[in-house]
Amino acid sequence: MRINHNELKETIEQALLNAGLSLEQADLVAQIHSSTALDGIYSHGLNRIPVFIRAVKNGWVNLNGQLELRKGFGVAENYDGNRGIGVINAMNASRRAVELAKIHGVGLVSVRNTSHWMRGGTYAWEIANRGMIGMCWSNTESAVTAWGSIEPCVGLNPVCFSVPRDEGALVLDMALSQYSYGKLQTTRLAGETLPFPGGYNKKGELTVIPAEIEETRRALPIGFWKGSGLALALDIIGAVLANGLNTPALDEEVKGKMSSAGSSQIFIAINPEMFSTHEEVEDIANRSIAAIHNATPINPDQPIVYPGERQVKRRKENIEKGIPVDPGIWNDVCKLAGKQ
Amino acid sequence: MRINHNELKETIEQALLNAGLSLEQADLVAQIHSSTALDGIYSHGLNRIPVFIRAVKNGWVNLNGQLELRKGFGVAENYDGNRGIGVINAMNASRRAVELAKIHGVGLVSVRNTSHWMRGGTYAWEIANRGMIGMCWSNTESAVTAWGSIEPCVGLNPVCFSVPRDEGALVLDMALSQYSYGKLQTTRLAGETLPFPGGYNKKGELTVIPAEIEETRRALPIGFWKGSGLALALDIIGAVLANGLNTPALDEEVKGKMSSAGSSQIFIAINPEMFSTHEEVEDIANRSIAAIHNATPINPDQPIVYPGERQVKRRKENIEKGIPVDPGIWNDVCKLAGKQ
Repeated sequence: MRINHNELKETIEQALLNAGLSLEQADLVAQIHSSTALDGIYSHGLNRIPVFIRAVKNGWVNLNGQLELRKGFGVAENYDGNRGIGVINAMNASRRAVELAKIHGVGLVSVRNTSHWMRGGTYAWEIANRGMIGMCWSNTESAVTAWGSIEPCVGLNPVCFSVPRDEGALVLDMALSQYSYGKLQTTRLAGETLPFPGGYNKKGELTVIPAEIEETRRALPIGFWKGSGLALALDIIGAVLANGLNTPALDEEVKGKMSSAGSSQIFIAINPEMFSTHEEVEDIANRSIAAIHNATPINPDQPIVYPGERQVKRRKENIEKGIPVDPGIWNDVCKLAGKQ
Repeated sequence: MRINHNELKETIEQALLNAGLSLEQADLVAQIHSSTALDGIYSHGLNRIPVFIRAVKNGWVNLNGQLELRKGFGVAENYDGNRGIGVINAMNASRRAVELAKIHGVGLVSVRNTSHWMRGGTYAWEIANRGMIGMCWSNTESAVTAWGSIEPCVGLNPVCFSVPRDEGALVLDMALSQYSYGKLQTTRLAGETLPFPGGYNKKGELTVIPAEIEETRRALPIGFWKGSGLALALDIIGAVLANGLNTPALDEEVKGKMSSAGSSQIFIAINPEMFSTHEEVEDIANRSIAAIHNATPINPDQPIVYPGERQVKRRKENIEKGIPVDPGIWNDVCKLAGKQ
């Protein structure tokens, strides 16, 4: 089932207005979620709207909460997110990081006490679209096993990198579990299994069945011990720079609430043209990308792509054909929009 | 076979003096390599000395090359490494990043045209020991398959993160292959196999035999498509900020020379006490670390550790008992030192 992207955006916006968001808030949040779906990141587009609205109704997101400067000097600024709308806080933080990078070459914005930023790639795209190299991450509650642990005790801690490029930005957006819970959800909804084991089932065996991992929450980190260490490092660095909650504190905070309630987030923008000309930046990016495009694919039907490449293609396709939606979730959002 | 760490350091230093390094250079390089071995990173300690000396003798490392400022403003500085001794360039770059962070909160030093930095963790430890959060990476020639590619076409691109902490810094040092080539070497020398497949053999099958991967150089990236994307992103960002060579350019440059000849490296230091007090930094780091220490281990004999923890233990053990060495490599270095 496919829905025209304008209809999708308007329906989401109406659902958000009904949930109490202002026109300006609903417009920006709907734009971000529909843009996420348009890029083919279905797990974090339409699918999160019912979750978000439940969080608003339960008071876990403060509709009056906005970024509030706590302390700043030169290159770095620290904000309290006041439990406001996570995507609005994160979008404003990214834009501020870009402004700081315009002045100083590098801009670092840290946000404490915010809420779920949904798709991290949104902010990496935003920074790249404004001409800067981006690096952003968020900590989360425990959702991944540390290397050698039975229970999850490190966060998913999605981390994003982006590089602006005339032909299309490179945007890497990855959770530190081998599969994001969003990906587990979409794989389960599609009735498929994972190509590689993504975590443990109740018996402590590695499994490719998404529902089994969603049940135990014993997701494997990327690269086993490496992703486990990276999740821990990003959690501590993020919480320290944001003066915010770390993963163990989020575990207490999140109980029964929306994931990432109170999380710490970092937004870094760096001017790529500090030491290289625009032509040099283009040459470097194009040549590195050409090397993977020109490599021999294992499967000739599966071209080798750079992070972000597929999203641009999916965006074009979804604008033409409409956005694929899960009929049940679409129905839920239509109800929330008062359309049924 | 174990060698006292003073004897190891002095023997390395003598071998380096014989290879033409100045007393000051030989002292610092020997200190870094013996410290690496002391921490239990045997692949990048003693084992790299014959490789490094061959590179010096072949003129691939310029003993007169030093960091030369190309351009800088405020928070960020760009240097030409002039193909000097990689570990000295990298050490000086890390220390400069710390100085910049003392002034600006954040310091970014990029180095183009340098040579192999050996163990990346050296610089992350250095930054943490000077009280700063560290993030460093280097690009390399192609040595890892991109996701879906037959031949390697992205770099190993080791990346390091560190956090200072009173009880012992957290220091993550990881190549973006599931196993570093150093780890493949030490596993092969120990006559062991890998716990998980680390790459492809000549037949295109996944394998746990290190020599087979060393032969094909078809190493798997961490997290499959995720590490592949991260390697590409770090290559481009590093080369752009350093105004240096990217992985495809290194492929041309490195042919027949020492790995990483001409590489681009980034050193970032961030003051952890910009927005948190020292006590808050300690509390955040200690609590995140306690969460993994307190998790239930899958194997009760294998405690869950944070990155860097084992190195501190190995250091103590190796100071007491001497540093384990491969007898053949030790013999080679003794010869280079004129001891036999």
